[in-house]
Amino acid sequence: MRLINTALLFLLLLILSCNALGLKPQLLGRHTVQTNSQHTSVSYKTFYFDQQIDHFGFLENGTFKQRYLLNNQHWHREGGPILFYTGNEGDITWFCNNTGKLDGEKYFWNQATEKGFMWDAAEELGALLVFAEHRYYGESMPFGEESYSNAKYLNYLTSEQALADFAVLIKALKKTLPGAQKSSVIAIGGSYGGMLAAWLRMKYPNEVVGALAASAPIWQFIVPCGEFYKVVTHDFTISGTNCSSNIRRSWAAIDRVSATGEGLQWLSQEFGLCNPLKTPDEVYGFKAWLQETWVNLAMVDYPYEANFLQPLPAWPVMVVCKNLYFNTSVSDQQLLSGISQAVRVYYNYTGDAVCLNTSQTATGNLGFLGWFYQSCTEMVMPMCTDGVADMFEPQPWNFQAFSDECYNQFGVRPREDWAEIVYGGRNISAHSNIIFSNGNLDPWMSGGVTRSLSESLVAIMIDRGAHHLDLRYNSEFDPESVIKTRALEVSYFKQWIKQAATTQ
Amino acid sequence: MRLINTALLFLLLLILSCNALGLKPQLLGRHTVQTNSQHTSVSYKTFYFDQQIDHFGFLENGTFKQRYLLNNQHWHREGGPILFYTGNEGDITWFCNNTGKLDGEKYFWNQATEKGFMWDAAEELGALLVFAEHRYYGESMPFGEESYSNAKYLNYLTSEQALADFAVLIKALKKTLPGAQKSSVIAIGGSYGGMLAAWLRMKYPNEVVGALAASAPIWQFIVPCGEFYKVVTHDFTISGTNCSSNIRRSWAAIDRVSATGEGLQWLSQEFGLCNPLKTPDEVYGFKAWLQETWVNLAMVDYPYEANFLQPLPAWPVMVVCKNLYFNTSVSDQQLLSGISQAVRVYYNYTGDAVCLNTSQTATGNLGFLGWFYQSCTEMVMPMCTDGVADMFEPQPWNFQAFSDECYNQFGVRPREDWAEIVYGGRNISAHSNIIFSNGNLDPWMSGGVTRSLSESLVAIMIDRGAHHLDLRYNSEFDPESVIKTRALEVSYFKQWIKQAATTQ
Repeated sequence: MRLINTALLFLLLLILSCNALGLKPQLLGRHTVQTNSQHTSVSYKTFYFDQQIDHFGFLENGTFKQRYLLNNQHWHREGGPILFYTGNEGDITWFCNNTGKLDGEKYFWNQATEKGFMWDAAEELGALLVFAEHRYYGESMPFGEESYSNAKYLNYLTSEQALADFAVLIKALKKTLPGAQKSSVIAIGGSYGGMLAAWLRMKYPNEVVGALAASAPIWQFIVPCGEFYKVVTHDFTISGTNCSSNIRRSWAAIDRVSATGEGLQWLSQEFGLCNPLKTPDEVYGFKAWLQETWVNLAMVDYPYEANFLQPLPAWPVMVVCKNLYFNTSVSDQQLLSGISQAVRVYYNYTGDAVCLNTSQTATGNLGFLGWFYQSCTEMVMPMCTDGVADMFEPQPWNFQAFSDECYNQFGVRPREDWAEIVYGGRNISAHSNIIFSNGNLDPWMSGGVTRSLSESLVAIMIDRGAHHLDLRYNSEFDPESVIKTRALEVSYFKQWIKQAATTQ
Repeated sequence: MRLINTALLFLLLLILSCNALGLKPQLLGRHTVQTNSQHTSVSYKTFYFDQQIDHFGFLENGTFKQRYLLNNQHWHREGGPILFYTGNEGDITWFCNNTGKLDGEKYFWNQATEKGFMWDAAEELGALLVFAEHRYYGESMPFGEESYSNAKYLNYLTSEQALADFAVLIKALKKTLPGAQKSSVIAIGGSYGGMLAAWLRMKYPNEVVGALAASAPIWQFIVPCGEFYKVVTHDFTISGTNCSSNIRRSWAAIDRVSATGEGLQWLSQEFGLCNPLKTPDEVYGFKAWLQETWVNLAMVDYPYEANFLQPLPAWPVMVVCKNLYFNTSVSDQQLLSGISQAVRVYYNYTGDAVCLNTSQTATGNLGFLGWFYQSCTEMVMPMCTDGVADMFEPQPWNFQAFSDECYNQFGVRPREDWAEIVYGGRNISAHSNIIFSNGNLDPWMSGGVTRSLSESLVAIMIDRGAHHLDLRYNSEFDPESVIKTRALEVSYFKQWIKQAATTQ
């Protein structure tokens, strides 16, 4: 279960606004075009690029169609830069399209006047926008529908291959897109996509002049395993009296209540579970679902109503904590009633939920199985809890058990040290032109670069910021910190572009 | 034939002196030890490291024994640096052992007082010496004797895999070798090994603080195809009156003479060929052998007697040219007699050769087939001649024909643009701490970095220097330029080590 938790945790990415106009670039060679018309309010253009399945071997010489989206609404040809979004573990159109339209207007801003960070930056810089899909997600399947069918086909799902895809695509765009020959390219990404943006600059500085790595936990491989859950706990501690301590107490309360059939029934009813708990064995999964819910809430603790994985109120953790103010004299049932109300903030803010489904905590647009595989190979991020420094049940990190689980699932075993070797661990000061932005509410900041390493490896901390808040749309509720952060990021972009112009 | 020429051309590497004392490091885990006793005068220690066969995929989880050699004679533990030789396409003990002992003393320096560059540098820096073998060469065979048996087994022979081997090995050495935890590592290599040294710094700056890339043609992928042969020609032009023009004229003379059976016989006799030419068709191979001989001579045009691929006099090109001073009034036979005398400088300086063997031009210690495969995949270095700017018969670069030849040979096709994308092409200014040294007699300087790109990407030109002269042993005949170069290189090493100490 730890594994799936860990894998799921990461599937929280960024929302981008894509309301932009059409594009008719002349592309040659390996590019094909298909106009996107799924969403009438969105008018980027969709392309497919013939990408090598294996960049690091020559026996498998096949190609696949890598999807990417283009918008040139603001692009100043002949020198205008390219903002290149390094797609992460999900459907690239979801990153681009899912800007609030899907769940009604009620929770969202006025699309006509407020946009996303990349779109604003494109306007300011006269930039072309490119959103590149990560292989094995969305439509970019190396072996079509068979891509996930066996270990042989999955073998090309690695971050190194994805980075090579990006580098090759950038090279091809610059070669074939009229006006792009001299464009500076800036990589932008959030979460795992932010890691990829940073790594793209580190490994292919010839292709990108700089990178914005938003909420990118590039050191999650090497930080102490308990750090992540400490931050989650801290968010709840500061968001309401007794909040984290009551969550910490809830686990034993669940155990006690669920020890009897009657208690199980009460628990299922109190939480309005779609599938009532039938045996004490199922309680483990129930607790894992709760744990994941708290983690998700910490990540999306945004200052305004938002719909990321679920529709949520402004500052959702604070709203959750209003249900968890009890002191220690409260009964198990009272405590768990509070928990059930708290959980509903996440799962039923709309009031439309008929029952709560413990088998799902997030959108289906993310590639769960793909990220599971990546966690089982390169992306080994040790996680643990001790119930003291955090509010969760103690669970040590057990690499061997994790490895065995991976082997059973995929027939592969993770390599514990590889990510540190290939991506440098803490020793990355030889690189340049990377912004690492992190919100101090975001659990992933535990693995992030939170102090500047040099003049051009810059850390920006966003006070009261959750997961990659800077990459999200502008809001009147944005804290001053994120407004400043965005302005600073664009000023670095300008600096890199200028620098590139003088060294070419 | 062009392909094989190109492949062979590159198989000219460096000689290193290995006369040093024993070593008994305590190594753990994936390391095994075997004392080397092949050569009594050499006392480095041989180790084997369990290396991943595939660093970039997880389906193939096997390991192989990567060989490496250690010498700690001069090592100051607790802080002393590591000079890490990035092995190229050959047996690593050949690089280390073949310091002149194999062919007798006559051609060589006094071993007791004169050493190789790395050994001198180790003494000056208190450094540990490590020579790491490149996978698929020497004993480091991923699939044992089957490694070259089919395309599937050959699939892991790439420069990226080799670099990952080096990075993983360095990481493991620093972890397990007592005293090495804080050692700065400097990569050193020549020719293809020099390219690997530079790329190791570029891709894994976390593992090496800097690199010396001696005679490393990292831009051979992208420079005009005729540049290499122009330098070869220039060497002959400056080494004797009419020298290059007589070689240019020789090709037509060979065609005319070999048009008759009598002429073929005369030619074979004049050149003392072990296998006399029987049909005019065989003349093509004969000319290719001559061409390769001229190229090899240009590369090893050292200022002293030396035995690299063949025992040679000092300044061998000048000696060759003494046989080629004729003016245009000379007959075909006279011209070709001169050529045959010239060729003997290369093949029979010892006077021991009974006949000349056109099927071999260099030592068997280099991995011909491996480099052929690498040329057929990533290492695509376009080469061409036009007979005007160079002294050879016109032969254009034909990628398609080359690709077809590769496919017939190995079942794989080269990717023309990949090396430029993955290793940056000319746009490498974001990197740091690399010395690119080149000799202005060395044809490979045509693809080298011959002008400094920044304060820490330094080009050093060695006047009157042939292929990686700086990495060879000290000689009283060394030009002033190479003596200064070596001193400068060591001063950069010191600077990098100091820099690393302050940033750690």
